[in-house]
Amino acid sequence: MILILTDFGLDGPYVGQMQAVLHRLAPEVPSVNLMADAPAFDPRLSAYLLAALLGEVEEGDVVLAVIDPGVGTSRAPLAVEIDGRWLVGPDNGLFEIALRRAHEAQTMHIVWRPQRLTASFHGRDLFAPVAASLARGDLSPLADGPAERFPAWPDDLPAIVYADGYGNLMTGLRAACVAETPTIEIKGRRLGHARTFGAVPPGGLFWYANSQGLVEIAANAASAAALLEAGPGEPVTLA
Amino acid sequence: MILILTDFGLDGPYVGQMQAVLHRLAPEVPSVNLMADAPAFDPRLSAYLLAALLGEVEEGDVVLAVIDPGVGTSRAPLAVEIDGRWLVGPDNGLFEIALRRAHEAQTMHIVWRPQRLTASFHGRDLFAPVAASLARGDLSPLADGPAERFPAWPDDLPAIVYADGYGNLMTGLRAACVAETPTIEIKGRRLGHARTFGAVPPGGLFWYANSQGLVEIAANAASAAALLEAGPGEPVTLA
Amino acid sequence: MILILTDFGLDGPYVGQMQAVLHRLAPEVPSVNLMADAPAFDPRLSAYLLAALLGEVEEGDVVLAVIDPGVGTSRAPLAVEIDGRWLVGPDNGLFEIALRRAHEAQTMHIVWRPQRLTASFHGRDLFAPVAASLARGDLSPLADGPAERFPAWPDDLPAIVYADGYGNLMTGLRAACVAETPTIEIKGRRLGHARTFGAVPPGGLFWYANSQGLVEIAANAASAAALLEAGPGEPVTLA
Repeated sequence: MILILTDFGLDGPYVGQMQAVLHRLAPEVPSVNLMADAPAFDPRLSAYLLAALLGEVEEGDVVLAVIDPGVGTSRAPLAVEIDGRWLVGPDNGLFEIALRRAHEAQTMHIVWRPQRLTASFHGRDLFAPVAASLARGDLSPLADGPAERFPAWPDDLPAIVYADGYGNLMTGLRAACVAETPTIEIKGRRLGHARTFGAVPPGGLFWYANSQGLVEIAANAASAAALLEAGPGEPVTLA
Repeated sequence: MILILTDFGLDGPYVGQMQAVLHRLAPEVPSVNLMADAPAFDPRLSAYLLAALLGEVEEGDVVLAVIDPGVGTSRAPLAVEIDGRWLVGPDNGLFEIALRRAHEAQTMHIVWRPQRLTASFHGRDLFAPVAASLARGDLSPLADGPAERFPAWPDDLPAIVYADGYGNLMTGLRAACVAETPTIEIKGRRLGHARTFGAVPPGGLFWYANSQGLVEIAANAASAAALLEAGPGEPVTLA
Repeated sequence: MILILTDFGLDGPYVGQMQAVLHRLAPEVPSVNLMADAPAFDPRLSAYLLAALLGEVEEGDVVLAVIDPGVGTSRAPLAVEIDGRWLVGPDNGLFEIALRRAHEAQTMHIVWRPQRLTASFHGRDLFAPVAASLARGDLSPLADGPAERFPAWPDDLPAIVYADGYGNLMTGLRAACVAETPTIEIKGRRLGHARTFGAVPPGGLFWYANSQGLVEIAANAASAAALLEAGPGEPVTLA
């Protein structure tokens, strides 16, 4: 399976054209648009989200990940193999946290280039064809080479990394790395823990271990983002 | 075919992760995201919409329907077979209207549980695997058991149940159950019938029998929702 | 492959029901939702966008294109074959620019009618079944017949035809038909050329040859649509 993760949004022909390339070059491999609203222009926040989403990605799968504010500049194209799963995308930190949590990893440079490479859409022209190759077991587009590393980034990020359509606020903190009882502080408000939405009254703010294994700030049948006026990048503290 | 109906929205990894589960567990069965913007947190309004959408669902299909404000609480997981089609989702009234209109129906409890069941995403962890099983003809996740019934709900609901992206307002009234000539009243305005959009001037409000068989309030090349300041839950009357 | 292009938006069951029809009638043919936010109710602007998107459509593919403000009126249903690719949709100018740029083209009327044809959703009831037939090589729904032509429309349109989710503004001008150096004027502002986003400072406005081969007005990590308060239909001039 090929899973597509981008910050392109679902407007326009962008995700559709990538899916068309995948169908043409790897017709026997199913592809799924995993999400198109990763933190825009932000490989750092996206890196924590991507690392969490890998929990649902299985051996043999390929993740085609394009959060690429430097498209058309000199940043390199990268493929990394992490515990049997390939990740394909720009070498800009997007895979930093996944690499750091890997049991086994290898980093490769994408040395293949397409006949036609537009300046602004490497997702379609370069990364999708390589993802299709890797899904079919063909590693010929790759050569050994290191990834750029970002040692200053923490292992878990005490900040909002993603707000979903309902205003639920995912942090970059793995729930399993947080003691069960602490309160979370955001914008001066202390929020208690609940197991899930139905355990708090409508409109009530809480934090819980979400379905991706992350600490998430939410409100029952309401938007935590609106109630807190908070979004991606907002810091949180364990209190 | 498996058709996915949720109130998750298309933001975030939610629909994509359910599609990934379906591809893994029933790779030979195509799946389609039917809609992700069913009335949020509202199994009652969604029940009328779902019953109408079944008109386009064929024998052998499975509908994976997750409008589930009680996720993580004690509401049961349910599968119902209605005239040769399986519906899988929470036992919260979502299938009430479909059951009521069925020629042949059986209700089953989902007794299978996954190894890992998150508190907030039964759509991915529980309902999608069961939908995949049923699509492959494997009923082993099920055992006989009744659905909770909602006898106070009317057979047709004189209210808006859904506003689409253009501001067209679907009601819970089946068009075939309404005489051809009456006017519809909403927020004190009386609207006449037209066959379709092109039959009224731009900006004109009207009602018509929509492509789902429901009475729908619409405006030609304009938003009825904006013109009427109305949305899901707004009552209508036949006048 | 069947590529779906509409102005339906991704809300509601519309695109999903078309995909379900395609899976049923041409199960062996992959289908992709290319885009659902073509210029609403506007076959003319959409015609320039569609003609550009054909650059990524291959011989044997079928484009199911429904921008159809006249649905339910007397406009005819049309199929055109352009350099080995079928386009299916309403005869309202949507294929005018593609036809004009064709090396080889034939126009056909859709003479087949479904048993049930709703007044408002020919995309699902009429055009999707015909697209499935053509994708399987079955031309029986068609008979020879001319398309309505729109000779007053220019070959390239000096206007915005599409604004994507980031506020990038695509024009109806093919980049290859514009000299490399001119500035583009929009709403009294003169914008210079850049190769791509990374070549200008954040927030900077520029124009470039986009990944669809069109002149596009954009801003690095910002919305050109918001900065210029411009959208589809806004005229541009080469200066």
